Amino acid sequence: MAGSSYGNIFKVTTWGESHGKGLGVVVDGVPAGLELCEEDIQIFLNRRKPGQSKFTTPRKEDDTVEILSGVFEGKTTGTPVSMVVWNKNQKSKDYSEIASYYRPGHADFCFDEKYGFRDYRGGGRSSGRETIGRVAAGAIAVKMLSSLGIKFLTYTRSIGPVTINEVNFDAHEIYNNSLYMPDSDAAQKASEYLDECLKSLNSSGGVCECVITGLPVGLGDPVFEKIDANLAKAIMSIGAVKGFEIGDGFDAAKATGLTNNDAFIMMDGAVSKETNHSGGTLGGMTDGSPLIFRAAIKPTPSIAATQHTVNKSGEDIEISIKGRHDPIIVPRAVVVVEAMAAITIADALLMNMGARMDRITDFYKKL
Amino acid sequence: MAGSSYGNIFKVTTWGESHGKGLGVVVDGVPAGLELCEEDIQIFLNRRKPGQSKFTTPRKEDDTVEILSGVFEGKTTGTPVSMVVWNKNQKSKDYSEIASYYRPGHADFCFDEKYGFRDYRGGGRSSGRETIGRVAAGAIAVKMLSSLGIKFLTYTRSIGPVTINEVNFDAHEIYNNSLYMPDSDAAQKASEYLDECLKSLNSSGGVCECVITGLPVGLGDPVFEKIDANLAKAIMSIGAVKGFEIGDGFDAAKATGLTNNDAFIMMDGAVSKETNHSGGTLGGMTDGSPLIFRAAIKPTPSIAATQHTVNKSGEDIEISIKGRHDPIIVPRAVVVVEAMAAITIADALLMNMGARMDRITDFYKKL
Amino acid sequence: MAGSSYGNIFKVTTWGESHGKGLGVVVDGVPAGLELCEEDIQIFLNRRKPGQSKFTTPRKEDDTVEILSGVFEGKTTGTPVSMVVWNKNQKSKDYSEIASYYRPGHADFCFDEKYGFRDYRGGGRSSGRETIGRVAAGAIAVKMLSSLGIKFLTYTRSIGPVTINEVNFDAHEIYNNSLYMPDSDAAQKASEYLDECLKSLNSSGGVCECVITGLPVGLGDPVFEKIDANLAKAIMSIGAVKGFEIGDGFDAAKATGLTNNDAFIMMDGAVSKETNHSGGTLGGMTDGSPLIFRAAIKPTPSIAATQHTVNKSGEDIEISIKGRHDPIIVPRAVVVVEAMAAITIADALLMNMGARMDRITDFYKKL
Amino acid sequence: MAGSSYGNIFKVTTWGESHGKGLGVVVDGVPAGLELCEEDIQIFLNRRKPGQSKFTTPRKEDDTVEILSGVFEGKTTGTPVSMVVWNKNQKSKDYSEIASYYRPGHADFCFDEKYGFRDYRGGGRSSGRETIGRVAAGAIAVKMLSSLGIKFLTYTRSIGPVTINEVNFDAHEIYNNSLYMPDSDAAQKASEYLDECLKSLNSSGGVCECVITGLPVGLGDPVFEKIDANLAKAIMSIGAVKGFEIGDGFDAAKATGLTNNDAFIMMDGAVSKETNHSGGTLGGMTDGSPLIFRAAIKPTPSIAATQHTVNKSGEDIEISIKGRHDPIIVPRAVVVVEAMAAITIADALLMNMGARMDRITDFYKKL
Repeated sequence: MAGSSYGNIFKVTTWGESHGKGLGVVVDGVPAGLELCEEDIQIFLNRRKPGQSKFTTPRKEDDTVEILSGVFEGKTTGTPVSMVVWNKNQKSKDYSEIASYYRPGHADFCFDEKYGFRDYRGGGRSSGRETIGRVAAGAIAVKMLSSLGIKFLTYTRSIGPVTINEVNFDAHEIYNNSLYMPDSDAAQKASEYLDECLKSLNSSGGVCECVITGLPVGLGDPVFEKIDANLAKAIMSIGAVKGFEIGDGFDAAKATGLTNNDAFIMMDGAVSKETNHSGGTLGGMTDGSPLIFRAAIKPTPSIAATQHTVNKSGEDIEISIKGRHDPIIVPRAVVVVEAMAAITIADALLMNMGARMDRITDFYKKL
Repeated sequence: MAGSSYGNIFKVTTWGESHGKGLGVVVDGVPAGLELCEEDIQIFLNRRKPGQSKFTTPRKEDDTVEILSGVFEGKTTGTPVSMVVWNKNQKSKDYSEIASYYRPGHADFCFDEKYGFRDYRGGGRSSGRETIGRVAAGAIAVKMLSSLGIKFLTYTRSIGPVTINEVNFDAHEIYNNSLYMPDSDAAQKASEYLDECLKSLNSSGGVCECVITGLPVGLGDPVFEKIDANLAKAIMSIGAVKGFEIGDGFDAAKATGLTNNDAFIMMDGAVSKETNHSGGTLGGMTDGSPLIFRAAIKPTPSIAATQHTVNKSGEDIEISIKGRHDPIIVPRAVVVVEAMAAITIADALLMNMGARMDRITDFYKKL
Repeated sequence: MAGSSYGNIFKVTTWGESHGKGLGVVVDGVPAGLELCEEDIQIFLNRRKPGQSKFTTPRKEDDTVEILSGVFEGKTTGTPVSMVVWNKNQKSKDYSEIASYYRPGHADFCFDEKYGFRDYRGGGRSSGRETIGRVAAGAIAVKMLSSLGIKFLTYTRSIGPVTINEVNFDAHEIYNNSLYMPDSDAAQKASEYLDECLKSLNSSGGVCECVITGLPVGLGDPVFEKIDANLAKAIMSIGAVKGFEIGDGFDAAKATGLTNNDAFIMMDGAVSKETNHSGGTLGGMTDGSPLIFRAAIKPTPSIAATQHTVNKSGEDIEISIKGRHDPIIVPRAVVVVEAMAAITIADALLMNMGARMDRITDFYKKL
Repeated sequence: MAGSSYGNIFKVTTWGESHGKGLGVVVDGVPAGLELCEEDIQIFLNRRKPGQSKFTTPRKEDDTVEILSGVFEGKTTGTPVSMVVWNKNQKSKDYSEIASYYRPGHADFCFDEKYGFRDYRGGGRSSGRETIGRVAAGAIAVKMLSSLGIKFLTYTRSIGPVTINEVNFDAHEIYNNSLYMPDSDAAQKASEYLDECLKSLNSSGGVCECVITGLPVGLGDPVFEKIDANLAKAIMSIGAVKGFEIGDGFDAAKATGLTNNDAFIMMDGAVSKETNHSGGTLGGMTDGSPLIFRAAIKPTPSIAATQHTVNKSGEDIEISIKGRHDPIIVPRAVVVVEAMAAITIADALLMNMGARMDRITDFYKKL
């Protein structure tokens, strides 16, 4: 059903399947006059590209983006920006086996029940390739927000039992290792852990973290459109994400008011906060502090080890999923998380412009 | 801004402030022919009523609901169901102090920045009383879903350091203790912990859990409208919720594919799952297993202990928030969590009807 | 189904039936800081009040509005403005006859088929009283737009065969006659025509016209959200409206390009138009000229004359609808048309703020 | 801004400009299991293709549609159907002149004001080519509705002063003349009238009519989502449409209740109507009669005759728009009107499924 659009004013609509002709996105509501070229998008797509390390699938897609509309003389025109990445490397492999049963941890069974049948080639619409459209759209949102001083830092926080150590945190390190971890020691340990997973035909889960700085106060609305709520939806809509938390998140559930409340203080003549347990929001609105959230990502469900399942004839069977699969989703999900967060913030930023009569009056008086 | 509506087909719009004339909700899209009376709603509102135990505020509101429209001869008509709870017990207390500064952990500062001023009486629109409309709407959703065999079980899973023990789990116990815990031992320990919090003028966070059974396969859509995503938004839109997880949630991030995948098996002639790490969804759609999710709720920010903050004149000050406040939000949030989940499921259930051409044809052929 | 909300950012949700407890509206997305009191709303409701002349129903409702939320210290807070008008004068008359058959020109039959039954008392949700919520919401929109210099002039253009003469057009005359016609001669003739209708137990249709001035250029969007399209929806959603046209409308279909095109000219240093056949829009956006549109309204379907119809038992019968009914809907619809137009323009005005990157940057730089 | 999507469940998002890489559409919410191939779409696109007669532009576009996603093994999968038509025939002509001034009757001026600049090549997003995406989407809606017995008949009702004569009405004639008129005499006269227009470097307006049969009772909702209102929005969102009416439309404004009311009668054991002045709707819902509406379309604004206008330097100038232009828009708009109507009906049909509890229960009981 109509579930492929996201956002109110900055509105993203994705389409495409893993082994169809291509994957694309229409981004409507991009403000006019933003400088934009394919290279701006490609940089983001390259961050999610397979084949970057031994832990990601070797399928060599070019994944080259093409902008089809909405840009004229190097700038967005205010009309929808349509983008596509053509599928070039679909192996004409035999999918008859995979079509015949339900892979554990995958949506195969639900698709068959909901829609009556499914495009079983490479997961169809449930493939990780579905995120290509999200990332392309997010690249525009990041660029738009960047011009307003809003910056994103997104990385792998943990892989299986290995978590980054805050003491070692180094933002520059993120792009130095294929796991996108801001701590080289942790990256090394995580890499070893993943090697073990691979050896045992197994896979690992992990956590992705995102920090957003430079946000104006007041993005998000007090009731259902809390910025926390919309980020939660955005992030939980990414396949394999099983949990979302903002600020101290689940740790706040164990805390007390005295330790969890962030005291306001004056700093450089402005209202600020002494701590940031809240993660940059209060009452569903940004509070001027860095916005921090985390996404829990489950282990890759496609594993080479033997598993029990059921086929379409209703028989219990043993399967072993062929082909090489990433033992970890997190590193490739990092840019998807950033993209979805940026789209959400861009939308909230545009929605927020009509919040106050004095600012509306000021806006229209000048036209 | 326009953030007081939730849902696509089953659409809820709430209004009202803590110390205004009342709090209400308009529920549009309720199917016609559902038997509904005020008692159906009142039962739910009573579950969130203050003054139920020594850990909840003694403000004695009647919180009696009145149905204003949409019901005729005991049944819903298909037109909007408008409901109101009048505020009867607003103390004409002096709010000038609270109006002058920003309470830590509250939205005061954000409201002032976003809207230019705020209704400071009792938290205004950010008050816990805002949830009255949600609960009233949720009561309708629960009744509607109940008639289709879909049931909700919602309870307090943990308070501060005290978590229920699965071994002691007893659903009947939930309504036997004022903390809504399904484990009498845990309830006793949590009660003692909260006594300590009160003595030290402090408060505690906790976790709420919800289990939904009887769901058909296929609710939710594969991309942005994943049932997980919409539940996350619904739950994270409740004030004080800082985290959401479904199934194993953040534990899945530490797991491996072999332990986290749920094997499909045939059971009584139907496709079933051996385990339920996924929490009842696959690829964003319900998979027929019980849907299980948790919400992390922060400690009550209003505490009697002395805190540092800033006043509207930009001065650093010390404050101590007067009046008695709940040392814990979780027990009163339990019914709010259930309400928001029910609204989300009801909406997904109605959206799902148009997913397959064969079922649409069948539907219209019979009219 | 969920059809009681209208608008994207300035969002209106109405509820209530003719003979229920009351009729109300929740207006979400009203910018904060707008001065607002019940008198602002009442003035608009009085314009649609029955019993204003011999041509409108004598049912004496007070129709006094009560603001229930969203206003604090005389100003809107940015939270939803909930308003209600209580039904006070429902006659406990016997509706068993009207419940038993389908009135020609009414929605009775459709309600029964779609929802399985209907609230037959006074038309239920299809009653003209449903517009109370629209008018209350429109009063806020008009006030908000007025502060930006945008003004509405709405009036009866024709009644049956009697049309106003442009030569006699006098805006001040609108409120001097109970038909809201800006031409006293036409009002006199129309009044005589309606007397004839009444005598013959008949009713008349008519046309309502609305002129909006002071609009900035560029409200509305180029494709599906054309301002023309949204006005058309808003106006056609009013019961009894059967046609909508903007500018020359259906006359444009008979015109040629040479006569229909409006030449641009420079006037006082600004781009202007020599004529206004387009009615103030080009390509779906306001062009700075007055926006002019018309609504065709059918004759009151409830007439005292004998009519043929069918009862719920499937028998052909003759009926004569009892009670006194307005022989004309148009004068009371004038304020409803204005209200729906104002809501549409307010929404477009807020949506438009995010159209250009330079203006967004300017907006946020100043915060 | 975000104005390129239409529909709630059956959701259409178009993109593309006249002289960009192509024009496309994403149709989300198409039920799974509908047989669909490119030929189904192409038939509709061919109906809007230029170069079909001497009255339409000779630009020879292939306008061949390509389905990019959402169809597998010949059937829709329930995921978004993305379609594109590549632009192949953009002349690299010099647009510097047209870029320098504002064409009367076009959106050039509004684009510049709203967005700061515009894609001036061939009208950019305001080009008639924008309708390609609408027509492709409409083809799917028509096919889906056709399988439920719902049929569309759309044609040119009048061109300038020439209107079809009901007596001569012949549906088969529609495709026999390039003007899509169901009356060969009228088509002949209209053709002569258009010859005159061309000779005088002028253009003509006209009216398009659409009749929809086989509709179930109850599509549309009673308040803002009236089927009349949504059709009005859909049709008025087509460029050049200046008026919309349903049933007797503006004539109803001149009628009386006695002549305008449609008496219900029993026919073949079912409730029916003796006449159809209402045009197939009552109270915003379909009533089982044929749904009839009309669109008034203005004359082509691009004419070869000399016109007065203003350039971007703010100077009054005389222009003569070069190139050959259609002297009439109506024939090519016929299929666009049908497409937008079909999308609207498809959406209402899906929305309607959740209107009654008994039908919902029945639906889910069988799964």
